[in-house]
Amino acid sequence: MQSTQYDVLAIGNAIVDVIAHASDDFLTREGMIKGGMVLIDESSAERLYDAMGPGVEVSGGSGGNTIAGVAAFGGTGAFIGKVRDDTLGNIYRHDLGSIGVHFSTPATASGAATARCLVLVTPDAERTMNTYLGACTSLDENDIDPALVASAAITYLEGYLFDQPPAKAAFRKAASLARAAGRKVALTMSDSFCVHRHREEFLALIEGHIDILFANEDEIRALYGVEDTIEAAKIAAQHVEIVTVTRGAAGALLVDASGITEVPASEVSAVVDTTGAGDLYAAGVLYGLSRGLPLAECGRLGCAAASEVIGHFGARPQSDLKAFIAA
Amino acid sequence: MQSTQYDVLAIGNAIVDVIAHASDDFLTREGMIKGGMVLIDESSAERLYDAMGPGVEVSGGSGGNTIAGVAAFGGTGAFIGKVRDDTLGNIYRHDLGSIGVHFSTPATASGAATARCLVLVTPDAERTMNTYLGACTSLDENDIDPALVASAAITYLEGYLFDQPPAKAAFRKAASLARAAGRKVALTMSDSFCVHRHREEFLALIEGHIDILFANEDEIRALYGVEDTIEAAKIAAQHVEIVTVTRGAAGALLVDASGITEVPASEVSAVVDTTGAGDLYAAGVLYGLSRGLPLAECGRLGCAAASEVIGHFGARPQSDLKAFIAA
Repeated sequence: MQSTQYDVLAIGNAIVDVIAHASDDFLTREGMIKGGMVLIDESSAERLYDAMGPGVEVSGGSGGNTIAGVAAFGGTGAFIGKVRDDTLGNIYRHDLGSIGVHFSTPATASGAATARCLVLVTPDAERTMNTYLGACTSLDENDIDPALVASAAITYLEGYLFDQPPAKAAFRKAASLARAAGRKVALTMSDSFCVHRHREEFLALIEGHIDILFANEDEIRALYGVEDTIEAAKIAAQHVEIVTVTRGAAGALLVDASGITEVPASEVSAVVDTTGAGDLYAAGVLYGLSRGLPLAECGRLGCAAASEVIGHFGARPQSDLKAFIAA
Repeated sequence: MQSTQYDVLAIGNAIVDVIAHASDDFLTREGMIKGGMVLIDESSAERLYDAMGPGVEVSGGSGGNTIAGVAAFGGTGAFIGKVRDDTLGNIYRHDLGSIGVHFSTPATASGAATARCLVLVTPDAERTMNTYLGACTSLDENDIDPALVASAAITYLEGYLFDQPPAKAAFRKAASLARAAGRKVALTMSDSFCVHRHREEFLALIEGHIDILFANEDEIRALYGVEDTIEAAKIAAQHVEIVTVTRGAAGALLVDASGITEVPASEVSAVVDTTGAGDLYAAGVLYGLSRGLPLAECGRLGCAAASEVIGHFGARPQSDLKAFIAA
């Protein structure tokens, strides 16, 4: 087998976050479910933007955040996702390129604008997301470069993409190509609503194509329709090599053929904005796995990266995560 | 005299900040003077953007930051400045409008893009700024609405505008209109290089039009060509009603006819990014003066607002500053 050029290739929605503080009352008035992600159309996005407070614009997107985290650990990364050739698209491309992530998916020259996610952070530091997918919806099979997939040790798929049929096809193509090249395929469930909407397809994808599965407690329980997280994780472990479940302040667990590994959450002095916690957990685990580190160490790196990102506004690391790697 | 509709009207460059971490080596390689502000053209801005790290986009501009601070104290504010009708211009307008600041200067429909400032934050939390003025350079006398100037208790002028001749004319018009309406005029020196470039004109403006003068130690000493800050402030106080000088970690001093008032800096747990410290100090002082508070209290509010803004990335407050106002 050829040697790999990239530790991780992430395939995800290319989204610029617009992060603002909001009160619980604001969420109630807008009929939002705290902590969730909903897709909104362009006119809703404009109306909500007018209603919300001053924003901070920062590149986001779950898969993009994860690959930024892999790069912050010193790993090599690539990204496939769709922007338009507009200001936010240029910002998105810059923010990945400037940290050494390979991102060559061509931008669209017409049609919907680059995606944005209106992120409302309440005083409890919880984030509630409203995503206008814009140009992301045009990602399709043609954007999956077989040579790029074959050159990455792990191809990481963002579950949110499952809300768009052409992206779903792109997903399956990437997973098949990775497996055919002898590489690993990872998937994150992304959102429990997303799991409810696409449960059967997720189950089929996992059983047929996935080696490493990321989920939080709600997602893994929704996927297998059981109340107990450990039980759900054990079911998943029958179909994949490694399953890892994040449990917020309780840390994370990783399950493989050898059993269950529990990892405590890292200490955080003050939680400012939980956006990106799961994405950065995945970054630490993927970095560790791509470097052949023991599962407990992979989990520790994930928790460390998650604790860094929730200590500030925005979903990408502001520190060099290499400091967390044991000498 | 008619009652005022606004506590403060700020006239300044409408700039979106692109904030990134950078090493001291990067500044050296790029030939930058740490802590300073330089004007760059469009091609230099593009080259530097390509070279720098991932950014966070957030509305800035010295006068814009100050008026955002006045609003965060619960004051009423208005802003005059020039953006283009592009993505960053829309972001700038949103970020002021959403905090209740009146901003009705029409955007340009062609020509240079909305201004951006590439802000590099070194590990010591110092910021070094590279500004592409873009659409700001088209601000002129026609943008000064006499009714708006007359409706504000204090018109606050950002010294950076002095780098553009049409804006200089706009400045003088606003100052004359404010005085004619029986209002106060405030000026911030903005930058010691700016003082060097325009010293004679600044002196003439101050003697002819200014009631309240803001400067830091370098600026006030450069303006009067003396080594001693107190001496420089006393000279300034012969020409204006109130002069206030910020001294970094040493706090600030305020001089009026009754003498010198010293105010200590507020405590900061961790300095993250010094961008906006002077702007937010001005916000606290202007809010206090517009509400008729004693000079020492004005200075205390200024130092409190400055300490809030240096505790996070970005130059606008992320907290409700009303908490600092004594009951």
